Amino acid sequence: MHQPTVADIGELGLLRRLQPFCASDLIGDDAAVLPVNGGGAATVITTDVLVENVHFSERTTSAQDVGWRAIAANLSDLAAMGAVPIGVTVGLCLPGTVAVDWVEGVYKGMDACLKTYGGSILGGDVCRSFQTSLAITALGYVTPERIIQRNRAQPGQVIVATGYHGASRAGLELLLHPERGQGLADADQKLLTRFHQRPIPRLDIVSLLQDVETVAFDALAGMDSSDGLANAVLHLCQASRVGARLVRSRLPMPSVLEPWVGAETALDWCLYGGEDFELVLCLSAEAALELLPQLGPNAAVIGTIEAASEVLLVEEPNADTGITLTWDGGFQHF
Amino acid sequence: MHQPTVADIGELGLLRRLQPFCASDLIGDDAAVLPVNGGGAATVITTDVLVENVHFSERTTSAQDVGWRAIAANLSDLAAMGAVPIGVTVGLCLPGTVAVDWVEGVYKGMDACLKTYGGSILGGDVCRSFQTSLAITALGYVTPERIIQRNRAQPGQVIVATGYHGASRAGLELLLHPERGQGLADADQKLLTRFHQRPIPRLDIVSLLQDVETVAFDALAGMDSSDGLANAVLHLCQASRVGARLVRSRLPMPSVLEPWVGAETALDWCLYGGEDFELVLCLSAEAALELLPQLGPNAAVIGTIEAASEVLLVEEPNADTGITLTWDGGFQHF
Repeated sequence: MHQPTVADIGELGLLRRLQPFCASDLIGDDAAVLPVNGGGAATVITTDVLVENVHFSERTTSAQDVGWRAIAANLSDLAAMGAVPIGVTVGLCLPGTVAVDWVEGVYKGMDACLKTYGGSILGGDVCRSFQTSLAITALGYVTPERIIQRNRAQPGQVIVATGYHGASRAGLELLLHPERGQGLADADQKLLTRFHQRPIPRLDIVSLLQDVETVAFDALAGMDSSDGLANAVLHLCQASRVGARLVRSRLPMPSVLEPWVGAETALDWCLYGGEDFELVLCLSAEAALELLPQLGPNAAVIGTIEAASEVLLVEEPNADTGITLTWDGGFQHF
Repeated sequence: MHQPTVADIGELGLLRRLQPFCASDLIGDDAAVLPVNGGGAATVITTDVLVENVHFSERTTSAQDVGWRAIAANLSDLAAMGAVPIGVTVGLCLPGTVAVDWVEGVYKGMDACLKTYGGSILGGDVCRSFQTSLAITALGYVTPERIIQRNRAQPGQVIVATGYHGASRAGLELLLHPERGQGLADADQKLLTRFHQRPIPRLDIVSLLQDVETVAFDALAGMDSSDGLANAVLHLCQASRVGARLVRSRLPMPSVLEPWVGAETALDWCLYGGEDFELVLCLSAEAALELLPQLGPNAAVIGTIEAASEVLLVEEPNADTGITLTWDGGFQHF
């Protein structure tokens, strides 16, 4: 008899099997919040594993960029919780044949990202293995009343994307197929590549949110867009049992994208490309209006939360029909 | 020109290269202590990576035992710091061909160990890879005045091993070569195997130490013996800039070991076998006398801290000569 394998049931199936073993109140956000212990702040913890040739490859990513991106991804999870970084631990698996300079480069990249956005390397472990991987656990502090959760989206709220989407995927394309960049100006190529190699965790938003008076944290939902913009909106809606209406013309993406790869691919990258590490926030229109000018020129109100069961993508705000967004894409027939 | 690889410089060489990137005050103990934030307790954090066919193999270790051992190793690091467990995060790398039952078994084993000794699974990440590995990060609380550190060993102190050493290595031998167990009673085989499969993190000692009035935490040094008894004593002496004198006849090991494998191999396993996950403590003779009866029947005073630069192994307390213990063994010519 065939014993079911991990490939048979997929990542989601596996997570469902493992969920009963995990502290139930800790599941479902970008990071877990530990019980407050005496002092005012709660500790937030999140873990990400990056595997060579799955999450990075020598072909597209220098050692320093691997380190930077690993830290940025974890700090982005902290930002998505409204937390400020304390530091990280690093579990590194390496074949003996890896160059020491490469390892040192990874640590230089991690160090550069931590120095820029806060936190330090708190410890770790190094092991031999056939395949290089990095397991990063990040710790942060958050004021319990200011935790950003996923399950607080409410009909009537607007949805804010804090920056460009599709830019990281575009940068990856240029790294994988440099010849495709011929239609682009050098400066644009460099910019898009940088979006992929040096993503910026939006920790600035954590402090911004605290200064915007109209933001009510108990009516604020949010997460990061590391797995794609569509994925973030779908997660927020699922956790909050609501639907959403996204407006295609409002989706923020680099202006060079559509002329370069066409509208359909640009939209695919924007919604499903992933790794842009922006935040997706659901909040009142009033709060969004106050917040938006402070988020930078690429942030946008991309739609609204609806009392519905699906995420609809429409061409323009008043459009009657649209297409339903799925977890794995499916807007191709727009 | 040959670029130096990880294999060229070894794990210690690599750690030395990476040390400059890590928060300097956090290095050198079994776990890092985070700055206290408001409340009374400090947070302790430690990371361990376990790789298939390096740290475990299907041949000797069931899925549940892999999970148990992974947690026990991390909880042992917390115990070595004087900390009480909060919980763990789990970064799991898996080939798609792994049976779901195996993964669930690992989580069952982790859950069983956490239920027995405290803490819960706080979160994690699952990734595809060629080789199975588990990166565990454990968090604990410690009262700052009761942190156990490595660098506080002082001449005049005695050294306590809190239980058997060599038992885990003996159990591994029986799992690798069942035929070698023919000379042993079934009950002994089972007991030794269990030492390997189900090690017990000595968290009981954390609370014991708080109740022993003669223990002064500022004159207590300690760590766990996960990498071997000799390794622990050498680390404690190196961190404290002292030497030690260990008495061979006092080393606690299962009584069946010597008759079974001979004195030399038994001593090798006791000093260098590793993974017994006991604590090695340096403290005043007075405190040791009060503590010892509470540690269980296998604990022993194994020697003394000396104003010296080496760790000497002598046959009996009054012996004039002994042999110098090295990090990688070298007592063979006793």
